Amino acid sequence: MPVITGRKSFGSDNHTGAHPEVIQAIAAANVGDAHPYGADEWTARAAGDLCDAFGAAGAFFVFNGSAANVLGVSLLLRPFEAVICADSSHLNVDECGATERILGNKLLTVATPDGKLTTELVATRLTGRGDEHRAQPRVVEIAQVTELGTCYSLDELRRLSELCRAEGLYLYVDGARLANAAANLDCELAELAASADILSFGGTKNGAVAAEAVIVMRDELLTDVSYLRKQQMQLGSKMRFLAAQFSALLEDKLWLRSAQHANAMAARLGAGLSGLPGVTVRYPVQSNAVFAVLNKERITALQRDWTFYTWDEDEGVVRWMTAFDTSEDDVDAFVEAIRASGEVGIASQAV
Amino acid sequence: MPVITGRKSFGSDNHTGAHPEVIQAIAAANVGDAHPYGADEWTARAAGDLCDAFGAAGAFFVFNGSAANVLGVSLLLRPFEAVICADSSHLNVDECGATERILGNKLLTVATPDGKLTTELVATRLTGRGDEHRAQPRVVEIAQVTELGTCYSLDELRRLSELCRAEGLYLYVDGARLANAAANLDCELAELAASADILSFGGTKNGAVAAEAVIVMRDELLTDVSYLRKQQMQLGSKMRFLAAQFSALLEDKLWLRSAQHANAMAARLGAGLSGLPGVTVRYPVQSNAVFAVLNKERITALQRDWTFYTWDEDEGVVRWMTAFDTSEDDVDAFVEAIRASGEVGIASQAV
Amino acid sequence: MPVITGRKSFGSDNHTGAHPEVIQAIAAANVGDAHPYGADEWTARAAGDLCDAFGAAGAFFVFNGSAANVLGVSLLLRPFEAVICADSSHLNVDECGATERILGNKLLTVATPDGKLTTELVATRLTGRGDEHRAQPRVVEIAQVTELGTCYSLDELRRLSELCRAEGLYLYVDGARLANAAANLDCELAELAASADILSFGGTKNGAVAAEAVIVMRDELLTDVSYLRKQQMQLGSKMRFLAAQFSALLEDKLWLRSAQHANAMAARLGAGLSGLPGVTVRYPVQSNAVFAVLNKERITALQRDWTFYTWDEDEGVVRWMTAFDTSEDDVDAFVEAIRASGEVGIASQAV
Amino acid sequence: MPVITGRKSFGSDNHTGAHPEVIQAIAAANVGDAHPYGADEWTARAAGDLCDAFGAAGAFFVFNGSAANVLGVSLLLRPFEAVICADSSHLNVDECGATERILGNKLLTVATPDGKLTTELVATRLTGRGDEHRAQPRVVEIAQVTELGTCYSLDELRRLSELCRAEGLYLYVDGARLANAAANLDCELAELAASADILSFGGTKNGAVAAEAVIVMRDELLTDVSYLRKQQMQLGSKMRFLAAQFSALLEDKLWLRSAQHANAMAARLGAGLSGLPGVTVRYPVQSNAVFAVLNKERITALQRDWTFYTWDEDEGVVRWMTAFDTSEDDVDAFVEAIRASGEVGIASQAV
Repeated sequence: MPVITGRKSFGSDNHTGAHPEVIQAIAAANVGDAHPYGADEWTARAAGDLCDAFGAAGAFFVFNGSAANVLGVSLLLRPFEAVICADSSHLNVDECGATERILGNKLLTVATPDGKLTTELVATRLTGRGDEHRAQPRVVEIAQVTELGTCYSLDELRRLSELCRAEGLYLYVDGARLANAAANLDCELAELAASADILSFGGTKNGAVAAEAVIVMRDELLTDVSYLRKQQMQLGSKMRFLAAQFSALLEDKLWLRSAQHANAMAARLGAGLSGLPGVTVRYPVQSNAVFAVLNKERITALQRDWTFYTWDEDEGVVRWMTAFDTSEDDVDAFVEAIRASGEVGIASQAV
Repeated sequence: MPVITGRKSFGSDNHTGAHPEVIQAIAAANVGDAHPYGADEWTARAAGDLCDAFGAAGAFFVFNGSAANVLGVSLLLRPFEAVICADSSHLNVDECGATERILGNKLLTVATPDGKLTTELVATRLTGRGDEHRAQPRVVEIAQVTELGTCYSLDELRRLSELCRAEGLYLYVDGARLANAAANLDCELAELAASADILSFGGTKNGAVAAEAVIVMRDELLTDVSYLRKQQMQLGSKMRFLAAQFSALLEDKLWLRSAQHANAMAARLGAGLSGLPGVTVRYPVQSNAVFAVLNKERITALQRDWTFYTWDEDEGVVRWMTAFDTSEDDVDAFVEAIRASGEVGIASQAV
Repeated sequence: MPVITGRKSFGSDNHTGAHPEVIQAIAAANVGDAHPYGADEWTARAAGDLCDAFGAAGAFFVFNGSAANVLGVSLLLRPFEAVICADSSHLNVDECGATERILGNKLLTVATPDGKLTTELVATRLTGRGDEHRAQPRVVEIAQVTELGTCYSLDELRRLSELCRAEGLYLYVDGARLANAAANLDCELAELAASADILSFGGTKNGAVAAEAVIVMRDELLTDVSYLRKQQMQLGSKMRFLAAQFSALLEDKLWLRSAQHANAMAARLGAGLSGLPGVTVRYPVQSNAVFAVLNKERITALQRDWTFYTWDEDEGVVRWMTAFDTSEDDVDAFVEAIRASGEVGIASQAV
Repeated sequence: MPVITGRKSFGSDNHTGAHPEVIQAIAAANVGDAHPYGADEWTARAAGDLCDAFGAAGAFFVFNGSAANVLGVSLLLRPFEAVICADSSHLNVDECGATERILGNKLLTVATPDGKLTTELVATRLTGRGDEHRAQPRVVEIAQVTELGTCYSLDELRRLSELCRAEGLYLYVDGARLANAAANLDCELAELAASADILSFGGTKNGAVAAEAVIVMRDELLTDVSYLRKQQMQLGSKMRFLAAQFSALLEDKLWLRSAQHANAMAARLGAGLSGLPGVTVRYPVQSNAVFAVLNKERITALQRDWTFYTWDEDEGVVRWMTAFDTSEDDVDAFVEAIRASGEVGIASQAV
């Protein structure tokens, strides 16, 4: 498959390279020797800054989002316990069964209208507690923002958190795109984190090369992290190069500026679609993703020149994502292409 | 823990940063969009070049050495099968039980004099075949170079390979320092690989930031790789940044030049020790590691100024490692310090 | 909890003891020494007879139904593959997450109206094949009879089997109550088995003490059975005592006579309910279970004197099961009690 | 393989059938209905009696010895923790890798002269504590009696227990033949148990059909048992039939009488061998096993008429086991056969 040329990809925020400041930080960290496995000053500084930003007890770097999720929930589960999650969750759909294989824990999935769990939906999975025949629910896993681009309000997070506390459950937040949620809600990371026991904070989709952080909110959850990260094959020897990426993202809130820009581009795209005949936006645009429904001929036609994924082939749903380096011109040109594909479509229908 | 300052670390080849050409390659890959998860041209080129160099069927990038080993052996094992390995192997000692946890397979360990398995040692573990009560030996795992810095000759590899074929076993090679073995044996990677079914090829200790390759020698072993890599949480989305590191290492055989230099520095260190009273080199110096025995007061004294690990506290064994960026002056200064520590030692004994 | 006295339990077919002929067979097998782990003549005979009855390649005894299911599907799965099953399946609900924990494989659950998968329902789970991010569907698991007492027709089995073959899937049948299905369909075990790759054949609910058989239909699936059964901790040393139970069940088709009787008692119960006001039978009565809906006061009142489980508290669903030793008088007395509970209910409503 | 006829097997204590009183107890439990999964009066009584005998917090029935061991250690381990055990242990050798597969935990094996761990041997495995790269030792597993027929004295148990407490380790005792140890030491079960955190108590080799008990000594270790037993596929539905077997064994200490007899028969065999030329007893005879060394021609000759296992083919070691139903005449005839085999051997050597 060739380099994507000519036109900006709307396929995913991981089609984009790294933010130039991240690359510079990697290069700048390449001086002299350092103690490996995180016992270096870059890691101390980046982890400390993350703890400050989240009000957390510890921050630990891993290589990718699946690993962050698996490590995160593994800190909260005994062997016979289960994770309640949306059936559309990355944990359930996009990790090739890693939770089941690596941890051995069951996922209790729930269908949702928009990728978001509610207290009512969680409650449907709280049956059979105390029954030895049943895997016991223990963790509620949500993604913020969700895999459908939607965003929990702080109030929705609070309600889930209260349910968890009342029911003896933990709340884990998959924050692969947490930056986009903070940008959308215009809130601090600590406000997002207040409801959670453990979160991930995604670097890769926010401009890093390959770095995610697992944020542990309470001291008593720290005891096993270092062993489990190592056992799960996520302990980097030259950790400074992961840490330096996060320091770059934290510097003057680069993470927030990038997320704000990506969100703005998605909003611009969403706005551009309104009034376009034959294109329906499927979910509220609350991050850097726009899900839309349009007919299959148009999808096929557009994919000749533009890069994006069909989300649901049967229903004609596509996902269009923006990134920190998507420009207004990119969006405008894509909107124009979408519009034009409709005319062709209409034309071809007329024939 | 502070930055290691002033004096070059002899602690490990992962105390070193990355080779400048690797950093440049990362920066150079940061152009435009690319298909994620390895469907990009950087990955195609690097994997292709690795296949050419090894005479292999496929090459797959992962983030670190533990992951390369676990993925590698996972391609060769059914649930009830076991891995024969040296009790000093990284797989057994330094991966926090990842093989048992992530794969569920048993390790059948063997004590060795020098970190190397022999056909005789392997044969001691071939009992109970066909007996349903026993985990069935299926993979012989060796490290080239070993965790004790020793190196299998091509002839030793061949004999192990022949035993494996005769006994229906696979041979997996942990090549975290395969470059150092090639440099020591003055042979091609393909010659090292000829005996193996699957190998890892270490980038990180050879100058990369965080990148290892799993080299699969035969087509029929390829079917599950992509799923298992993903499931084992080792699939990077922005794969180009791992691939670019390997392309930099392969360019004009940078990997070999770096390994030759590191080996030469270890040889210089080993030579410098000869004739030093109270210092015994423990294993033949066949790579970039020197293991030595000296008394504990001298170890303690040296560790005040120099960074290195005590390998066996009871027996007073230390490990001194060199890297691509260890200089002759570094070695000479260190040898002088070791020599001087003896005089202090002798002096203090005289008191 | 005391012995259930006075009145026959309608709670489950495992509330019943063992068939007297099974106990006699255990006693009769207790003569002299025998080779352990199944290398005895009792095991050879029982396994051989089962193979004959099913047209199977091999039959293997285990201790309970969860183990039979886990062993059965484990013979069909690679680490990254998944099982499509009804969300009401025993495998999903009643094994405390054993598949995920013991095997590490994912379950892809489907909601069903009556506990039965259809080709259309299976097809909804066949997305993402070939995509390394997704666990790959490989086994279709059905229970015959289902956990809701319903029974697949031979035609329905055939259609599922054809889909499996067309799609490269395996069909596993949880036959904890396979005897009841054979009785209901008036067919041979071999006819039930023809569609499957592997089945379990339940002894315990059919009159055994603690014995189930895993029936493997094809030679090429036999290679790993003995190792996996041992590793899954299901290899009995004094195997003759499991085998003898099955020989007793097979003798003059005791298994069929017992199942026919249990089914007839359920049919009698179902018939007795028709016309009772306030009691609705929920699923077709096709085995030894009757699911009914009635109001909660009546359930509570009945449970004072009779033993049975509430299946769904919210919806007021109860499950009533019969066994080989349920008598017509037991059923008639129970029907009368149900009828009478309605009068009390009506009376109490009148007040 | 045919029934073993004519001559009593010295192969294993599981070649024997069940004790007649056990069979009677099974038959006697087959009355009426009972709540399943252990919520019956037979289970309450047997578990209560076991708790009394051991001074334990809980007793749980499983189907076989491998399962008892795996369940037992699973109650004591976090995912990154390891079990220190003799390399000859059943856990390591004879369970087809179940600990690694079912639990995912590592075994840290130690070579022993006689199957027994000592505090010194355990100490050799306590390196790397607190190092995230190493699986962390947490459980010391011993068999009482050992797989080599030897028996820990109460003093040896006490020393191991003290080490465990001092080092933050748990002590698990594989008691597949605990009865034989109690008989040998002439002590109470509670005395054997005092040093342990969890033990198994073997029924099968002591006259049961298929039943073992997991004995949990302290309340705080009880929380997960019921879930883990179910998840590990060891929860029997008709539990009364397992419990009844244990009640039979406990009745007038049948377990002890049977073990005393078996031990006496092994002692008689050992005594009979003394003075026989060419036969060396290998380990102290402290239970119902005699390990002996003799030349391979004699082994082959004896195995024509007698059933027993060669333990180590290279070294000519055989294992001869007695059971509750081995008679003095059986032993005497066997001793005579061994003696006679020597004459043939000598004769054949003379030729």
